Amino acid sequence: MSTSVVRGVGLTPEILDRLREIVGAEHVLTTDGDVEPFSRDATPLFRARPDAVVLPATTAEVADVLRLATETGTPVVPRGGGSNLAAGTVAERGGIVLVLTRMTVVQEVSADELLAVVQAGVTTSTLADAASARGLLYPPDPGSRTVSTVGGNVATCAGGLRGLKYGVTRNYVLGLEVVLPTGEVIRTGGRLWKDVAGYDLTRLLTGSEGTLGVITEVTVGLLPMPETSRTGIAYFDSLADAGRAVTAIIAGGTLPATLEFLDRACIGAVEDFAHLGLDRDAGALLLFGDDGSPRDVVESLDRMAAACTANGARGIELATDVAGSEDLLAARRCSLPALSRLAPVTMLEDVTVPRPQIARMVDDIEEIARRHDVVCATFGHAGDGNLHPTIVFDADDHDARRRAEAAFDEVFGRAIALGGTITGEHGVGAAKLPWLAQRLGADQLALLRRVKAAFDPAGILNPGKLGS
Amino acid sequence: MSTSVVRGVGLTPEILDRLREIVGAEHVLTTDGDVEPFSRDATPLFRARPDAVVLPATTAEVADVLRLATETGTPVVPRGGGSNLAAGTVAERGGIVLVLTRMTVVQEVSADELLAVVQAGVTTSTLADAASARGLLYPPDPGSRTVSTVGGNVATCAGGLRGLKYGVTRNYVLGLEVVLPTGEVIRTGGRLWKDVAGYDLTRLLTGSEGTLGVITEVTVGLLPMPETSRTGIAYFDSLADAGRAVTAIIAGGTLPATLEFLDRACIGAVEDFAHLGLDRDAGALLLFGDDGSPRDVVESLDRMAAACTANGARGIELATDVAGSEDLLAARRCSLPALSRLAPVTMLEDVTVPRPQIARMVDDIEEIARRHDVVCATFGHAGDGNLHPTIVFDADDHDARRRAEAAFDEVFGRAIALGGTITGEHGVGAAKLPWLAQRLGADQLALLRRVKAAFDPAGILNPGKLGS
Repeated sequence: MSTSVVRGVGLTPEILDRLREIVGAEHVLTTDGDVEPFSRDATPLFRARPDAVVLPATTAEVADVLRLATETGTPVVPRGGGSNLAAGTVAERGGIVLVLTRMTVVQEVSADELLAVVQAGVTTSTLADAASARGLLYPPDPGSRTVSTVGGNVATCAGGLRGLKYGVTRNYVLGLEVVLPTGEVIRTGGRLWKDVAGYDLTRLLTGSEGTLGVITEVTVGLLPMPETSRTGIAYFDSLADAGRAVTAIIAGGTLPATLEFLDRACIGAVEDFAHLGLDRDAGALLLFGDDGSPRDVVESLDRMAAACTANGARGIELATDVAGSEDLLAARRCSLPALSRLAPVTMLEDVTVPRPQIARMVDDIEEIARRHDVVCATFGHAGDGNLHPTIVFDADDHDARRRAEAAFDEVFGRAIALGGTITGEHGVGAAKLPWLAQRLGADQLALLRRVKAAFDPAGILNPGKLGS
Repeated sequence: MSTSVVRGVGLTPEILDRLREIVGAEHVLTTDGDVEPFSRDATPLFRARPDAVVLPATTAEVADVLRLATETGTPVVPRGGGSNLAAGTVAERGGIVLVLTRMTVVQEVSADELLAVVQAGVTTSTLADAASARGLLYPPDPGSRTVSTVGGNVATCAGGLRGLKYGVTRNYVLGLEVVLPTGEVIRTGGRLWKDVAGYDLTRLLTGSEGTLGVITEVTVGLLPMPETSRTGIAYFDSLADAGRAVTAIIAGGTLPATLEFLDRACIGAVEDFAHLGLDRDAGALLLFGDDGSPRDVVESLDRMAAACTANGARGIELATDVAGSEDLLAARRCSLPALSRLAPVTMLEDVTVPRPQIARMVDDIEEIARRHDVVCATFGHAGDGNLHPTIVFDADDHDARRRAEAAFDEVFGRAIALGGTITGEHGVGAAKLPWLAQRLGADQLALLRRVKAAFDPAGILNPGKLGS
């Protein structure tokens, strides 16, 4: 009931009836049991009961729901797979959670045009698999890819493990079908890599976190699938050494497909969880990999291994085939589940700093964590400076929560001071909104609000998030 | 005097005095002779005399000029090198042309961070050379790169010959310093490849053609410089054959650095102009090239040459070194100057279609040109479907101009019907604005206007262009 305090307008029986007319009664959920799974996403500590969960099947239904919502001042929170890590899909002001997971058609995969067209509710994995079946690569691979939707990926500009070489979701979105909060359906961009007719609404909507429009269809660019890929692991005494190796790898002219790190605490947690035989005495683990022709991949890995050795690696392990590479990648892929096991609440953060500042930022995170007496482990994307410091604690330990929040408050400030940002790929959502002004400044924040109003004059779309 | 008809507010002596106070009297040009070069850009047939040309030296001066302009309702047209091809910098409503060419400091080139920070008035070539001196590549290479500025490149999302493999300006802009029309200075993005804190104003401003803000500083990402590059030429009897070769090259898993074409008329004009020894009996010329390690480049070119042979190439020439490659590239680089020699007026267009539609679009262009009795040659970027049909005629032949405009009107409609767009890389400017509604639809056009108003409530920035 706490959410009703900040709710602008509740859902009257008339509104519920009209929603049932639009999408069919079975696709409007209102009971406690039915709406419970949609009262939270993957962000700990944030939850709010929506008045209704609505599952449209078509763009026309989405448009009808939004028109009704603008007419009646009803908040609408668009949602895909619900794997958001910044409480971006929590309906803090009640209203409707609009779930796109019934729109799951892969409409086209074209090898000639190197693109795919999918409805917004298609999962990232489904898209990647459909591309792969045609010998094509969809590079963005967020950790949640088996449940996250392409619409959600676009709404958050999702990243993943291939960012350094391949970029993020933004680099692959060619066109969108979007329903505006006022019900108009627009098509931005299209099937073209080059198109400058009009403001770049495609990219503006990418990362807009469901606050400007509801994405219903996405056209993404694809790449030829690399012939093969290969991964290696290097252990270092310290993250400073690993950081120097990263700098040397990139200075050597390689932008590898994979360049990830785990700190000592994270190595220990992963080893406890998955028993991969990692060197738990190491101060840092660097996972490096590349893709391309078999010959190029071997050479690239040899060069990276040499850079690691030259920068004090205490041990190096190179996979000899794709299966072995997947085994090594598991160390990184299971970092979050491993840390989640340590305590009931896992607060996963997402600061990014310029690459040369990684070791310093991790040092600072460790110092801040010690001072606030919190259990913190850090892993992340060494290639693009994107760090995921993770603090774990007990759900009912309110003091631990307070200490964790105080620690992250300092971490965000430190990241900004180092030329970094408060979120590299997870988004602002409700969780990070309090720090946005510090990152952007008052003038830019005011501009964001004016842009929001240009799309959503009634302020119904994901209120209390970006643009609020 | 014709511009005064549509001018909202002339420049009073008081406004001129305040401009002189802001930038210094010698940097405010008002005489006919002084403003003449700023009365037009590289677009034929568009010209308008601004009331004053103002050349600021600092961001603070830009901010003062814009504040004054918003206060007094004075139009301001931002301008870099003046190489715009869509009349994007023509001051059709008079007022101030704000020229950024005094802001030419390359502030930083970092090999560690793979980025550069430059003031907006730095030329594209200067940036590329500064990067190259550190062993780094700035991929966007518009044809005007020796005169175009980085600020102008960002404002138009400039492309070039490397788009297929490397993308366009948008893919390299990491952060901007921008002065809003109301005088606030904001910093969007930063030094990071991954940053989702707030709406993506960096990418919204990229391609906004000086209508949302004045870009004063740009942070661009750079890549390691490829070891070498190599180019080849293939001749075909028809563009349809060349189109099939392009499809085969890409289906073979190669996204080459260069994939350009010239039609028969263009080959003839280039040969008349530059005497390169091209096969002028060919129906189409395909220029293909790649960069990377010497071994990879040779293999890539061999694969592409084989795809050309398999699709009916009547002759193939492979450069054996970088110098030879530059010679072959000259055929493409001098297409525009060669066509410009044919007649006083050169109308260069910029439609883009999905790659498989290139041959059909060129056929349609030829048919349309015949029907309208205009001299038309087409060259362009085969890799990304970006075509530059070019019509030449005499300046005082008003009927020829009318026929050219009628022909392009059909060409734009045809491009849209094939899933394409009215401009791939040159921009909308004043020249293409009449066709924007056809491309975007009324709802999206209305949204563009609301976005424009969110940035520029007084409508002073480049009025009569995008967002108008």
